[in-house]
Amino acid sequence: MIQLNKHYANLRESYLFAETAQRRDAYRRAHPDQKLLLLGVGDVTQPLCEKVTTALHMAVDKQAKKETFHGYMPECGADNFKEAITAYYAQRGVYLEKDEVFPSSGASDTLGDILDLFSADNTALIPEPTYPAYVDANIMAGHRIVHLPTTAETGFVPQPDESIQADIVYLCSPNNPTGAVYDRAILTKWVNYALSKQAVIIFDAAYEAFIEEDHVPHSIYEIEGACRCAVEICSLSKTAGFTGMRCGYTIVPKSLVFDGVSLNKMWVRNRTTKTNGVSYLLQEAGVAALSAEGQRQFKETLMIYKNNAKVIMKALDECRIRYCGGKNAPYIWMECPQGMDSWAFFDYLLNQVQIVGTPGEGFGSCGKHYFRLSSFGDPADTVLAGERLKVLFEASGRQ
Amino acid sequence: MIQLNKHYANLRESYLFAETAQRRDAYRRAHPDQKLLLLGVGDVTQPLCEKVTTALHMAVDKQAKKETFHGYMPECGADNFKEAITAYYAQRGVYLEKDEVFPSSGASDTLGDILDLFSADNTALIPEPTYPAYVDANIMAGHRIVHLPTTAETGFVPQPDESIQADIVYLCSPNNPTGAVYDRAILTKWVNYALSKQAVIIFDAAYEAFIEEDHVPHSIYEIEGACRCAVEICSLSKTAGFTGMRCGYTIVPKSLVFDGVSLNKMWVRNRTTKTNGVSYLLQEAGVAALSAEGQRQFKETLMIYKNNAKVIMKALDECRIRYCGGKNAPYIWMECPQGMDSWAFFDYLLNQVQIVGTPGEGFGSCGKHYFRLSSFGDPADTVLAGERLKVLFEASGRQ
Repeated sequence: MIQLNKHYANLRESYLFAETAQRRDAYRRAHPDQKLLLLGVGDVTQPLCEKVTTALHMAVDKQAKKETFHGYMPECGADNFKEAITAYYAQRGVYLEKDEVFPSSGASDTLGDILDLFSADNTALIPEPTYPAYVDANIMAGHRIVHLPTTAETGFVPQPDESIQADIVYLCSPNNPTGAVYDRAILTKWVNYALSKQAVIIFDAAYEAFIEEDHVPHSIYEIEGACRCAVEICSLSKTAGFTGMRCGYTIVPKSLVFDGVSLNKMWVRNRTTKTNGVSYLLQEAGVAALSAEGQRQFKETLMIYKNNAKVIMKALDECRIRYCGGKNAPYIWMECPQGMDSWAFFDYLLNQVQIVGTPGEGFGSCGKHYFRLSSFGDPADTVLAGERLKVLFEASGRQ
Repeated sequence: MIQLNKHYANLRESYLFAETAQRRDAYRRAHPDQKLLLLGVGDVTQPLCEKVTTALHMAVDKQAKKETFHGYMPECGADNFKEAITAYYAQRGVYLEKDEVFPSSGASDTLGDILDLFSADNTALIPEPTYPAYVDANIMAGHRIVHLPTTAETGFVPQPDESIQADIVYLCSPNNPTGAVYDRAILTKWVNYALSKQAVIIFDAAYEAFIEEDHVPHSIYEIEGACRCAVEICSLSKTAGFTGMRCGYTIVPKSLVFDGVSLNKMWVRNRTTKTNGVSYLLQEAGVAALSAEGQRQFKETLMIYKNNAKVIMKALDECRIRYCGGKNAPYIWMECPQGMDSWAFFDYLLNQVQIVGTPGEGFGSCGKHYFRLSSFGDPADTVLAGERLKVLFEASGRQ
């Protein structure tokens, strides 16, 4: 008789986005004339840049003719896309070999798939608040999970603790949901921690393109020793608006060797067995996005989101509400006023000023009194949201 | 310290396609003036049909405008693609619910990913000759593997044996590499076997569109009881020339329940955790492919491959060489003449008539004296190959 993966029974249902959507829709039905300002969205809203759509049209045309038709792609990625990725890293002084780079169907896919390289007998260290899929994927894999809550005192940046024995460490910078960024000093501490524990860091760099301060590393490989302990997972989703396109890349350095076994070789074997590569169209789109002109164009789009973030930050500053993020990240993690619970604050914002955000508790219990606002919304709506926030908090401040 | 997945150490390197490519290239270098006829290819060579490329151009245009831009797709698939798939099955009297259908990035991806639902403590029954990834994915998952060799006596169709206790059963019809198809009677035996063992059948239907005989099931769900024991994995790769596009679908029926646990619910949880859905572009392409006009167009393309198969079959018939496949499948599985070993025959064909095929031994030891010829090659080259085969075997027959 088939034996099912029993770890699935340990998963808890994630109600976060279902519940926020339900409350939003209920409000909409009750108040059909009121405009909602959607600042809960973790999805991009601006179109693909012209460089990418032109490349896609060309790629489609090639698929329409026998002479230029592409069948199976190499399982570990097309050379031109791998070269574009290594060149993108080289811009910041990170020099990767082409076969350390693995195009993927996006960061989410790899965050789960990469666990296939490890046995069930591992402990995953997951700083909180966190993207919920890290936790769920590790529950499915049967890993023991150590939650590492972070607080405003450390700017929601987790600090390594030598007394915790972990084998897999999740780091996400710029962070979802807090928008916090990890500087060189803290990343160095984590790399040293991982090296001392012979642990693997899974570094989620999905939001690296939002970094605007020069001293903040975009890649963990900017840190000495990281190539001996870290896998980096990245995506064009937020960088170039590829959330609905599905194309990213994973870095598995050749120097990542444990007990004489190369993780890079294992991942090559995994990809050649369990995939037939990433779509030709999407890899061509990726090449276009990472070209000089593509980068120039997607940075223009990112400025729209960055302006949204500025509008929100300005409103919060004026209301003297504490927050982190926004500067090098598309998310702003604000403290709920007057110690309010994040779900109560969700309802309060929705009812008072028709702003939809995301309750911090959905990202772990240490987010219970925090709230995530996203800069991915419509610019005009974001301006309106900023004004409403000011009116609301100035009014409630006067009470 | 990180514990790696130790099962990877049990994998054997697959030299099949690397070795054939190396021998082919060596021959090419030694004989630069000779034209090779490539009948080893397991990849499509004809372009996408017009209906699909038109849909792709439209989808790209939508991604270029804010008003029509698509961000994240639903993790379990776009409604319109799921509806197109259920309608495609309904054409043959198989009625699926929309949420039993999961768009995927292709059959290969799901063949590996689906094993996540099962524990390591399972036995996989794999009929041979077989697509090598079935074996490797199960080795990675730590499953015990029972190989079930098939022979010419049963037309390379495996027969269930009640004395074998298996928990996961791989069936592929039309088969790669043998081109054999499983009729209703044998599929019924397998469904009954699986039901009696409480095993799960992984039914690989990637070549279903090649079936031309009415009595051959396209889907295992044409068999009573299959919805209680089978997952079906399919792809548009061979159906509509999507090998380089990456789009397929997986059927996980809601009635697939073991020990009170729904595999459908587990798969929903898996997808929502470990993916962010399939590319909007590719799902739009899938909708176009499965439309009435799309089907008409891809069937025209399939006729090119089917004509190639006829050319090869005719040549083998005239030379009185035994083979199976070709009629309802893109592959022809021929007996090597005079008991020749399949690698020796590879060299013989290459050297004598410059035809490149695939040695049967690469698909399991019972393929040691067989050889796979593919109908995916160039039509003119295939005609030439047919003529050369006739000349070769008439000559050798006269010896």
